[in-house]
Amino acid sequence: MAELAALDKTARQMKTLSQALDSGRLGPVRRLVNTLTPAEIGSLLEALPPTKRLMLWGLVDSEDDGEVLVHCNEEVRESLLQDMDDEEIVAAAESLDLDDLADLFEDLPDTVTENVLKSLDRTDRERLEQALSYPEDSAGRLLNPDIITVRPDVTIDVVLRYLRLRGEMPDHTDHFYVVSRRNQYLGRVAVTRVLTSQLDTPINELIDDSQAPIVVTAEAETVAKSFADHDWISAPVVDANNVLLGRITIDDMVDIIRAQADHNVMSMAGLDEEEDLFAPVRRATRKRALWLGINLLTAFLASFVIGRFEIALEQVVALAILMPVVASMGGIAGTQTLTLIVRGMALGQVSASNAMALLSKEMMVGGFNGVIWAIVVGASAGLWFGDLRLALVIAAAIAINLLAAAASGVMIPLLLRRLDIDPALAGGVVLTTVTDCIGFLAFLGLGTAFLL
Amino acid sequence: MAELAALDKTARQMKTLSQALDSGRLGPVRRLVNTLTPAEIGSLLEALPPTKRLMLWGLVDSEDDGEVLVHCNEEVRESLLQDMDDEEIVAAAESLDLDDLADLFEDLPDTVTENVLKSLDRTDRERLEQALSYPEDSAGRLLNPDIITVRPDVTIDVVLRYLRLRGEMPDHTDHFYVVSRRNQYLGRVAVTRVLTSQLDTPINELIDDSQAPIVVTAEAETVAKSFADHDWISAPVVDANNVLLGRITIDDMVDIIRAQADHNVMSMAGLDEEEDLFAPVRRATRKRALWLGINLLTAFLASFVIGRFEIALEQVVALAILMPVVASMGGIAGTQTLTLIVRGMALGQVSASNAMALLSKEMMVGGFNGVIWAIVVGASAGLWFGDLRLALVIAAAIAINLLAAAASGVMIPLLLRRLDIDPALAGGVVLTTVTDCIGFLAFLGLGTAFLL
Repeated sequence: MAELAALDKTARQMKTLSQALDSGRLGPVRRLVNTLTPAEIGSLLEALPPTKRLMLWGLVDSEDDGEVLVHCNEEVRESLLQDMDDEEIVAAAESLDLDDLADLFEDLPDTVTENVLKSLDRTDRERLEQALSYPEDSAGRLLNPDIITVRPDVTIDVVLRYLRLRGEMPDHTDHFYVVSRRNQYLGRVAVTRVLTSQLDTPINELIDDSQAPIVVTAEAETVAKSFADHDWISAPVVDANNVLLGRITIDDMVDIIRAQADHNVMSMAGLDEEEDLFAPVRRATRKRALWLGINLLTAFLASFVIGRFEIALEQVVALAILMPVVASMGGIAGTQTLTLIVRGMALGQVSASNAMALLSKEMMVGGFNGVIWAIVVGASAGLWFGDLRLALVIAAAIAINLLAAAASGVMIPLLLRRLDIDPALAGGVVLTTVTDCIGFLAFLGLGTAFLL
Repeated sequence: MAELAALDKTARQMKTLSQALDSGRLGPVRRLVNTLTPAEIGSLLEALPPTKRLMLWGLVDSEDDGEVLVHCNEEVRESLLQDMDDEEIVAAAESLDLDDLADLFEDLPDTVTENVLKSLDRTDRERLEQALSYPEDSAGRLLNPDIITVRPDVTIDVVLRYLRLRGEMPDHTDHFYVVSRRNQYLGRVAVTRVLTSQLDTPINELIDDSQAPIVVTAEAETVAKSFADHDWISAPVVDANNVLLGRITIDDMVDIIRAQADHNVMSMAGLDEEEDLFAPVRRATRKRALWLGINLLTAFLASFVIGRFEIALEQVVALAILMPVVASMGGIAGTQTLTLIVRGMALGQVSASNAMALLSKEMMVGGFNGVIWAIVVGASAGLWFGDLRLALVIAAAIAINLLAAAASGVMIPLLLRRLDIDPALAGGVVLTTVTDCIGFLAFLGLGTAFLL
């Protein structure tokens, strides 16, 4: 329950806020809200029903508007933008760092994008246009061009004097980047090294070139994984010619890692991770309907299988009563294997090279559980209906379905990935279709053979 | 598919490795492995079947052993430790930072823990014992005591000279911590501020005390959320008396955020996030059996409901053929709502204060989808069996079940949480039990009333 305790704070804030909003005492709300970080405000806005959401949005300090928009999911962001006039949007956009602005920019109404661009000075405009020229979810969208570069031939002393002159540094600066005259990346020097080295040390004696720079076209997830694997705090980003463009910092990676995890949880239920908790009923209905429609086809497929055994069902009603047990045991067992495999895929731990080993392990687990539950279910059914043959039939069906479930749980996600279909999204539907059909087929088929 | 692309590297490495391991050419394997980070090696070990896993483990540079163990999930770690003799384990433990050692320590066999403690110098031993005195998943387990503290009355110049004398700093040092004579936390000074300030500036003019320190007993998830909300890179940790104990850095938070996400995905299938991809068949069987047993009870409950309608099933076989459709549509719709709510809970966005609003929104969505799919299913069933009354009965049952599904999807997780049961773990089972029973009850009940 740690997770829940962890979020009491948000829950409490939400309670206080919605009560205050209900009571219409907006003063306290404004005071409370503006003690929160943009990320916290974004989360609160996502948690509030539409009317309260807009009330609260109206109370957020306008200088925070941009940051908050960046921290909301796309659907909520959209609803907030609709509530702002062009001037407000431009002002909000102006307040953002370039990487955040690049993130927000494409969601902005066309009426304002022009003005936003106009509001930027030439360098920033060029930088933004460059950022937007990179594909979404690429390093180019995440990089922050605010970095401190130094030449290899200067000494610590020079650097220190330059910094004092400069008077400030970008947030989270943990390295200085060493570049050639043509601004090509040579390596970096940890701020800590600069502090602990003698003043007359030339930079090139401190250069750390062990960490290969990130290429601007690299995929965001790849970058996030590198950060996690190497415990990076920041990393330099270069273009194809090794020209230094900026850096990526870990705080942006945290957002990506969260979104990625979110994607897995949500897509297993056919939802997308940008889904708004309070999405307009119409939109939510449309989105869910699609998923229900897909499932309906598979359900009818199962019914069709059952339909092949009318006679058996008419003569032995116990088959109708017990068939859901066979199907659901298969579905549960298969989902366990499927989840393990899909998680493994997301971690890059499942591939052709260990698929066979996984298959045989899961088949063995499925086999043993098949035997265990065949006995339990067989015995219970036998006692319930006082029919030994029925007991044997359902026992066999359970064993068969748990084996099939294990096999499908391993093979379906691998197959889907080969077909370039997201296993997290489609795996469950396909799997339960298989376990339903095989379950009904085995149970009713054996029933027809031995009970009529 | 970004996610998959992101992991090609791991997949490729795994392919190369397992082929090399098969061929027995261990030289290249050793060379490849030791170019990887401990996190990458850990991930590879997790991905390999037991025999290959131990072969690879034997090839890892012994100086990396400790770090790699820290980066494996508990089950894999256990299997690797069993393969090491006490000397190796002690050596591995010695090589670790205190926070990592604290993380590993309790998994070590009792035979070695003594020697590990002996191998530490007095300060480190005391620090470790202190760390272990804090509850697991608390800030105390994550804190790293390696920090640089300064007094408020010294000047930048003094600090700089001290640092050059010191010659090195702990990794990821982005702040100096200002403490009183009694080592109480007063605030911190960004390394960057030190670099950009004039030499004669006294530290107390640069103190930043805006960020409240983390209390050592705070829960890891709470801390991780704060890091994400505030874009922290590091944070000071104090005890109840505000005495500075050390700091927590964001790289450890990334692991926690990942584990938390993992927990949600895995527990929805009744798996735990430490599950080893290649867990021994016996252990895996036992763990899965429990989950299947719980599900069996719910499945029999559904069968019991069906059993109440023997007569109807005997007389109208179409009811037996179509009843899975009603149940599965309810299950899918309910799971969508459930997932949305559970995700919202994990983000702290769902609580009593917006539960009603969520309930009414989801009921409306469920209502609309109920009407849509009642018509579709009713029409299809009517055409299939050429029976208008059957069409009306199943249409009504679908509508009822989708409404029930929406209500359960919102209320079950809230109820479970009140009972202190993890909604991610138990939500699905309870929900499908409800949707199955209501689905069968509605369909077969109406069938009995209007079709006999």
